[in-house]
Amino acid sequence: MVYRIEAATSEVEARAEALALEQTVELPRGCVRDPFVEREIVGRVESIEPDGEGAFRVAIDYPAATTASDPAQLLNVAFGNASLQEHVTLLDVQPPAPLRETLGGPRFGAAGLRTAAGRLEGPLTCTALKPLGLGPQALAARCETFARAGVDVIKDDHGLADHPFCRFEARLLACRAAIERAADATGRRAVYAPSVTGSPDRVRRQIDRAAALGAGAILVAPMLLGLPVLHQLAHDGPALPILAHPAFGGGPRVAPSALFGRLFRLYGADAVIYPHWGGRFGYSARTCAAIATALRETWKPLRPALPVPAGGMDVERAAELVRFYGGEVMLLIGGSLYEAGDALLERSRGFVASVRAAAEEGIE
Amino acid sequence: MVYRIEAATSEVEARAEALALEQTVELPRGCVRDPFVEREIVGRVESIEPDGEGAFRVAIDYPAATTASDPAQLLNVAFGNASLQEHVTLLDVQPPAPLRETLGGPRFGAAGLRTAAGRLEGPLTCTALKPLGLGPQALAARCETFARAGVDVIKDDHGLADHPFCRFEARLLACRAAIERAADATGRRAVYAPSVTGSPDRVRRQIDRAAALGAGAILVAPMLLGLPVLHQLAHDGPALPILAHPAFGGGPRVAPSALFGRLFRLYGADAVIYPHWGGRFGYSARTCAAIATALRETWKPLRPALPVPAGGMDVERAAELVRFYGGEVMLLIGGSLYEAGDALLERSRGFVASVRAAAEEGIE
Repeated sequence: MVYRIEAATSEVEARAEALALEQTVELPRGCVRDPFVEREIVGRVESIEPDGEGAFRVAIDYPAATTASDPAQLLNVAFGNASLQEHVTLLDVQPPAPLRETLGGPRFGAAGLRTAAGRLEGPLTCTALKPLGLGPQALAARCETFARAGVDVIKDDHGLADHPFCRFEARLLACRAAIERAADATGRRAVYAPSVTGSPDRVRRQIDRAAALGAGAILVAPMLLGLPVLHQLAHDGPALPILAHPAFGGGPRVAPSALFGRLFRLYGADAVIYPHWGGRFGYSARTCAAIATALRETWKPLRPALPVPAGGMDVERAAELVRFYGGEVMLLIGGSLYEAGDALLERSRGFVASVRAAAEEGIE
Repeated sequence: MVYRIEAATSEVEARAEALALEQTVELPRGCVRDPFVEREIVGRVESIEPDGEGAFRVAIDYPAATTASDPAQLLNVAFGNASLQEHVTLLDVQPPAPLRETLGGPRFGAAGLRTAAGRLEGPLTCTALKPLGLGPQALAARCETFARAGVDVIKDDHGLADHPFCRFEARLLACRAAIERAADATGRRAVYAPSVTGSPDRVRRQIDRAAALGAGAILVAPMLLGLPVLHQLAHDGPALPILAHPAFGGGPRVAPSALFGRLFRLYGADAVIYPHWGGRFGYSARTCAAIATALRETWKPLRPALPVPAGGMDVERAAELVRFYGGEVMLLIGGSLYEAGDALLERSRGFVASVRAAAEEGIE
């Protein structure tokens, strides 16, 4: 793991050593008297480099045995108690290859999501069904409009739970029917991804219904549900591609590339939504590029996942986004389509057309 | 909900309004055209007060309908997307009484944990089995020592997972036997709380075994497992008091009193561990007092939970801690006992005796 530690030069070695102990044995080194614990459990400070004024970039190697190959325990070793220490930030997560293999990563990956959407190359388009408060039929009407416009993936807003005024199953049925009507008309079948949320038993019931009723993917917010829940969904139970939403994942103490890039991918997200710069959220272009890199780069044996920049993008920025990310991306635009009001179909067609045009340009 | 928003005076109203929309409909107000959505879903800014230079304390009321009475969705409404906006901090969570009733809070509460420990009044004592890396018998020997010394609650370190060198069930069996041996010798039975961790199915299996083999409580880290997992554990399945650990719960963007005080209690923790000031973590005395207040104060119909200050407390501070918190507290001291090395029993007896003495003093 790589951390940023704020400390004076005279203190940083002691702080790094304290962190290596805190994240494993939670005891001063003098209390560790067992040779197996000393050798196979205690973290080791690998390197300390200056990282700006009053801070250092510190790499700590934890023996793989500490993690029990368990997603919750890996998270604990990486940043459990450290998250309570304000001078420490988690910058990168680099578990050894055998642990990556055990945890497994995405079941489908970017390529699997492309297969589900029937678009094997070039940028995909995505939008969200909203607002929270509408009933299943009203949301399904929007779903049909987006599907007719040629949007590849249509997901629920992540705030759509099992509300009395919009039950999960009623919404799923209505939106699936809408997708089929549009497919009959256009010859292309969009992916519908319902939002599954709640405690684990409820989530499992919702996913079982989603699979039975032909949803093409699911939307989950791993930080709301728990990261180990993401891991379980990606490896047990019905096999549906997972779009991961970043809700409740903010705060400056875990680098977004480590959380949304490394950990979301490691635990099984096939595509990861995050705020692109210049929208309603404050990420920098550099942060967004780092997230996309962590999701897409070679990290054997894990499949690459698809970056899904979002968060207040205007349709007019589609070409710019394609230039920034290249073709291996899914653009998620919601509010900017809804602003068209009654012209939702035309605006959505415009979104799809501009992404296709930008992709063509990129190919030339 | 109450937030702190960093903004200029000229901007704060617009930012507060944007937040009320972000957390519910995720659309600009102009796009919300349905009267039900406008009336029953969109958040309302209730008050804006200055909170120091360049910041404001903003109360937003969300209609209860937004939450679907679901723990994951309540978290999402409270701080889902807002967590990604660096100018926003969540200060307090105040769901309406009917929603508190639905979510239920602690199944046992402080009183239930006291019953399990056989200590109906005065401060309780608690310690941790460590370090990670020891086998079941070595940890059980420490467990027996602590139980003989009169410690009320003996928990696993939260890093103890289902490791190959220390299987969950082997540890549980060994520690339960140790507790019984000590009980035979002293006439008092300590509570043993094993650490349950992993993805939901694994956690469920571990808790089933813990209940079957007579554990008196369980230790969970809700931020590692997922807050909705805590809610499920507290309301379905075997009924064991829950000690909640704060691992992975840090970062400055949710006030510790809102997270460890309000949310942990609301979702069902019977006792909550958090870093006391002056130890290895940087919380202030004021923050610690606010956490304890949120756990203990009247918040109908929820049972009070027990504050468990921890994180590098020396045995010598026991009296000071009792003066700070009064009798309705459990003091968790780990490392400071282990520093005694071979004198672990004597040091643990000293811990228990000093807490009892401080409590007596407080009563006089």
